[in-house]
Amino acid sequence: MPSEALQYPTKPYSKVNRYDGRATYALKTIHELVNTCPILQVSFTAPDSPFPMMLPMLGQMGSFARPSSDTGDVLELYLHGYVSSRFINLSRKSSGGGDVSGAETEPSGLPITIGASHIDGLVLALTPNSHSYNYRSAVLFGHAEIVTDVEEKLWAMELITNSVVRDRYCHTRLPPNNAEMQSTSILRVKIASGSAKIRSGMPKDDKSDVEDSALLDRVWTGVVPVHYTLGAPIPGPYNRLQALPAYLDEYVSESNQDAKDIAVEAATKVAEPKPKLED
Amino acid sequence: MPSEALQYPTKPYSKVNRYDGRATYALKTIHELVNTCPILQVSFTAPDSPFPMMLPMLGQMGSFARPSSDTGDVLELYLHGYVSSRFINLSRKSSGGGDVSGAETEPSGLPITIGASHIDGLVLALTPNSHSYNYRSAVLFGHAEIVTDVEEKLWAMELITNSVVRDRYCHTRLPPNNAEMQSTSILRVKIASGSAKIRSGMPKDDKSDVEDSALLDRVWTGVVPVHYTLGAPIPGPYNRLQALPAYLDEYVSESNQDAKDIAVEAATKVAEPKPKLED
Repeated sequence: MPSEALQYPTKPYSKVNRYDGRATYALKTIHELVNTCPILQVSFTAPDSPFPMMLPMLGQMGSFARPSSDTGDVLELYLHGYVSSRFINLSRKSSGGGDVSGAETEPSGLPITIGASHIDGLVLALTPNSHSYNYRSAVLFGHAEIVTDVEEKLWAMELITNSVVRDRYCHTRLPPNNAEMQSTSILRVKIASGSAKIRSGMPKDDKSDVEDSALLDRVWTGVVPVHYTLGAPIPGPYNRLQALPAYLDEYVSESNQDAKDIAVEAATKVAEPKPKLED
Repeated sequence: MPSEALQYPTKPYSKVNRYDGRATYALKTIHELVNTCPILQVSFTAPDSPFPMMLPMLGQMGSFARPSSDTGDVLELYLHGYVSSRFINLSRKSSGGGDVSGAETEPSGLPITIGASHIDGLVLALTPNSHSYNYRSAVLFGHAEIVTDVEEKLWAMELITNSVVRDRYCHTRLPPNNAEMQSTSILRVKIASGSAKIRSGMPKDDKSDVEDSALLDRVWTGVVPVHYTLGAPIPGPYNRLQALPAYLDEYVSESNQDAKDIAVEAATKVAEPKPKLED
């Protein structure tokens, strides 16, 4: 049964203009790209800086109000990482209660942009210009606020910890104490829009090059799959567990198999015609 | 013989404030992080957008004027990828010849910020809050202009193609033809400042947790190394070379060995005292 796939509205700032056959605005696709990206790049402008700020952060999509939501539902992005004092100050300023007239033109929170990119392969073509990557890249635009509610903060910490290693949270010392709660900042981003761009498959060279027999005899063409690998876990100085816990062992093996499969599938995928929105 | 390591000036927008023992401003470190990052995130502001723009791009540090420069020298960043018409228009506008009075307060070019992040390991601690990544993350701030000089553009295309696979450029159909030169945009970024932040080593938990014997008996602590793997190259539909060329085969094996070594070394590294700048 095909579900009705939710799409982000295309805004002037979020619309993909070039290679738009590679673009998607589907919440599910975008949210999955963000959730599986180990480091997100978060950008915002600061009034006293000539350049945008950029911070690497961890993040997961979720809904505190409806925790059982599917990845294709309307979700917020929860971010964790070093939140600079500049970021916090700007975020607090932006969260102030609207303008004097009471007219609310902009959502509260600091406007931020989040980039999530995966590389799936090196696409080696006959000419330098036809070289490419197989990649999956998403960008989200939204308004960030510091999470102050204790329940929501704990829920988000669990969400983000379990994104590092599945089921890790319940296998640690809980609950976080007061000092830990104070020193940890979580941001909640209300998403305004987003888009993703995906390239998969084999190299595509121009006809004139593909018909050049001497060139074909000389240049190797194809795809080198690229993926993350989790290596054998290395016990720390105060670890006492001789055997790796099952949840961790399984997570490492499954992650590695999935990552490999995704890269090989991306390389060998045959481009399908894009389904129409109304289908 | 210790060389005099060049450092980027610390500006208010580039200074690392938290965990500043993990920060570095050394050109060599920052440039190497950028050069080995397969996807850079590039951010800039557009006057008609409430959010910063963000684009994934490929990039390499280099000097067209002094091509034999070392990675620790003063270099420009050359970027390749989809350059949006918005980006090009803003970049052209910014490159216009200063203001009417002739006073040049700002370098020409569009102010952009570039983020490059590597993940080296999952740092699994006793408490959720002490979890971390081993990572190497750099940010550069600079002014971007479109490269119009043909020689410089060809040089940059070679630089960037060879960053995808070492020695690839000379093994393809050369030189790029007119149509290819027209359809490819290369940006040159004059760097104003930059910084990097690096975390390595094992988990570090609070004393009270490390002294909790029951906790130590229950929670596995240590590092799961993380690195990119290049899979076995998959020939494309019009590839005729039965054997993988030596330069490609060697690149794949060496990259994999290096990536694995870096992740394991990051995990097992013992923190060294930071050398003083004046030493």
